[in-house]
Amino acid sequence: MGCFDEGHFNGELENGVSMCSEVEDEANTAAIEDAVKILLLGLGEDINREGLKKTPIRVAKALREGTRGYRQKVKDIVEGALFPEAGLENNKIGHAGGAGGLVIVRDIDLYSYCESCMLPFQVKCHVGYVPSGQRVVGLSKLSRVAEVFAKRLQEPQRLADEVCLALQQGIRPAGVAVVLQCTHIHFPDIESIFLESNQKGWVKIHVSSGSGVFENKNADVWADFFYLIKSRGIDMENIHVRGSSDQCWCPSLSALSTKVSSKIGPINPAMVTAVSSILNSLGEDSVRKELAGTPNRFVKWLLNFQSIDMDVKLNGSLFGGIKPLSATCEVVNNIDKQIYSELNLPFWSQCEHHILPFHGVVHIGYFLSEGFNPIGKSLLQSIVHFYGFKLQVQERLTKQIAETISPLLGGNVIVVVEASHTCMISRGIEKFGSSTATIAVLGCFSTDLASRTSFLQSIANATSSGGQ
Amino acid sequence: MGCFDEGHFNGELENGVSMCSEVEDEANTAAIEDAVKILLLGLGEDINREGLKKTPIRVAKALREGTRGYRQKVKDIVEGALFPEAGLENNKIGHAGGAGGLVIVRDIDLYSYCESCMLPFQVKCHVGYVPSGQRVVGLSKLSRVAEVFAKRLQEPQRLADEVCLALQQGIRPAGVAVVLQCTHIHFPDIESIFLESNQKGWVKIHVSSGSGVFENKNADVWADFFYLIKSRGIDMENIHVRGSSDQCWCPSLSALSTKVSSKIGPINPAMVTAVSSILNSLGEDSVRKELAGTPNRFVKWLLNFQSIDMDVKLNGSLFGGIKPLSATCEVVNNIDKQIYSELNLPFWSQCEHHILPFHGVVHIGYFLSEGFNPIGKSLLQSIVHFYGFKLQVQERLTKQIAETISPLLGGNVIVVVEASHTCMISRGIEKFGSSTATIAVLGCFSTDLASRTSFLQSIANATSSGGQ
Repeated sequence: MGCFDEGHFNGELENGVSMCSEVEDEANTAAIEDAVKILLLGLGEDINREGLKKTPIRVAKALREGTRGYRQKVKDIVEGALFPEAGLENNKIGHAGGAGGLVIVRDIDLYSYCESCMLPFQVKCHVGYVPSGQRVVGLSKLSRVAEVFAKRLQEPQRLADEVCLALQQGIRPAGVAVVLQCTHIHFPDIESIFLESNQKGWVKIHVSSGSGVFENKNADVWADFFYLIKSRGIDMENIHVRGSSDQCWCPSLSALSTKVSSKIGPINPAMVTAVSSILNSLGEDSVRKELAGTPNRFVKWLLNFQSIDMDVKLNGSLFGGIKPLSATCEVVNNIDKQIYSELNLPFWSQCEHHILPFHGVVHIGYFLSEGFNPIGKSLLQSIVHFYGFKLQVQERLTKQIAETISPLLGGNVIVVVEASHTCMISRGIEKFGSSTATIAVLGCFSTDLASRTSFLQSIANATSSGGQ
Repeated sequence: MGCFDEGHFNGELENGVSMCSEVEDEANTAAIEDAVKILLLGLGEDINREGLKKTPIRVAKALREGTRGYRQKVKDIVEGALFPEAGLENNKIGHAGGAGGLVIVRDIDLYSYCESCMLPFQVKCHVGYVPSGQRVVGLSKLSRVAEVFAKRLQEPQRLADEVCLALQQGIRPAGVAVVLQCTHIHFPDIESIFLESNQKGWVKIHVSSGSGVFENKNADVWADFFYLIKSRGIDMENIHVRGSSDQCWCPSLSALSTKVSSKIGPINPAMVTAVSSILNSLGEDSVRKELAGTPNRFVKWLLNFQSIDMDVKLNGSLFGGIKPLSATCEVVNNIDKQIYSELNLPFWSQCEHHILPFHGVVHIGYFLSEGFNPIGKSLLQSIVHFYGFKLQVQERLTKQIAETISPLLGGNVIVVVEASHTCMISRGIEKFGSSTATIAVLGCFSTDLASRTSFLQSIANATSSGGQ
């Protein structure tokens, strides 16, 4: 099973991690809460401000929930879900039913945490097996077992191997195959974000694991498996080869990301210690080799979102020295009737309620009042990133962008933010495909439906033509 | 709020349905178990056979879980999730942040039970509100509140109205808008299924509900809302108009479905009583007017899947009198090297582990041995429906189809079944996009990779060109 630590795993599978008592559970949750407070203080936040007051308990509960796999046993799931099912009648040659004949459950949406950086990553899981011994397993169990291992700190290849081995041991079929399409948020920082090459939002990897008749990568049955997931754009050729570069998928491990940005400043050791304590409270061993650098990397990511003095930055180099013309600018009514717009400006942000990333695109539209000049795309992008790299809520981000550019243009501005929120797929609600749109309308956009419609239509057009 | 019974609803929202005690919960689950046993007996099943032994408890738990909304309070969900958030600075004209500026969460996948027939239906939910009073609600709460009302016996318009009113009362914003895209499994029966017009798999409806600034359907803010969900193919024009035909969306209420098929036989009153008792055990009032005919309709649907003597039917009129040539037919090796195939034959079936529908398509491929004739599409479709209309598991369905046609062709057959299982989206795992593929291979298809590959490739081609 390659890099997979079978001994460690067997211990878990056979004996199970003992279920936490309620007291232990409360103690662990409280310890995470304390650690989150240290992280918030390290970001320069006031932990008593309204938006953050309940963040530590919310984060503690979300993390415990998101890693509940440490406290679950595969045996409990599979037991009682094996059903006797006849194979072919004696006079028939072939494979079907409870003795041969591939069974695949495709497109199981999962969600895991990256062991290198603690950020969540998404998984599209395809899992199959070839029944033997005249028995089949309830289909939902394939998904439930995959979920047990996804709800831990993971690395894609290990996740695939663990699901595969657990099913092989639990069902004892002729073989098990697991193919995962994993998607990790890109790891920009407030400095490198302005380089064009860092604008990509996702890192993707495909991994596979096989046991029994799937142990050999060249077995015919793998060909059958890949044909049945063909429309997902995945085949044997684009599966990552297990080996030395296994650790490279997480963007936090790339060369660019390991140097500490001058914008971030030194990493506070108390924050690193706090993250180590979180790992231990989740039931992990924070000193195992794969986790050695994780607290440091997580803190480094988090520091991108530290609270900074807005006035200093607004008038400083970040926005190229441009100042709002007047702090009390009124809407100027003498306007150019053309809508200027910049669509699909990417942004990254961090939800202050859950300390989880949300990211997406910002669309900006405006009328130009007499005496004002259009704003270039790069300045708009800078403003978007400036307000993105904070502990935020999407409604506030939308408002801040609109308020910042409004006095530069004469007051007639519309801002639409479209985002995916990691917090919408954690904490048990797991709404994988959901997205959130928010609008801020200033000046004539707040009263003139035709102007709004014209701008919103241009977003719809850009989206349907693949602009997003 | 139209047809919506506000008084009844307010009672629930303000006082909440009292949470069941553990004792009550166990008693209700046991009562459902007993009722399910009566239903299985009514279908002519042996309730002690392996596949069905745990079905009553599995169904009871799934139904209690799937209707947990009766035991949840909106107040508990929204409380503590309202965050202070400033509106625009005083000198700005417009709407944003905690005072105006639309917020929409789009594409929330939900799952509900139809109050007319008790079958599940899928919901794509888009929910928005306009903040007021300098506060916003945590985004996940919009989804959680929608879930409370989805997890009950519902009708689309009522579901939209209840979610809308609950959010309006819970958040007190300037207005709430709810748009639902609902999809109900078509309600075929073993008789009408052979009419071409009944081959459609789904009935769809779009409904909306609005309060506050969304109360007027012609309000400008609705235009904004629809632009932001435009790529979903939904706009004001294709929203169902609330009114007299509200009750018609469920296919069980159509004229064709209300007559009892001659193939089904008379409806057993003990089964109808059992379903009424299930409704009461879920926390419903089985005598409320919308539920009056539900037990009867559910039993009628279920009777499509009753156990029937296969030999009688196989040699009878259903398959046009065709008999297998020989019960001990060997694989005939002298074959025509062309693969004959019928792709995308639709089927409906009922999962015997959960008594929930699964449905999809069957692909059949074969070589023709010397002395045999090809089988026409309509006979293949009949065989597929014959084995579909039972309490089934997909692995067995696949095997039975292959075993039935194999002796008619000389033994070289491949059958692939692709299906969506309702049980994969209930019972808490809620894997909305997942699908299951199973294969049976007989004769040379079990050994010859090239033949399998050629057939599987033809499925992949048919699927990618929109054949499925």
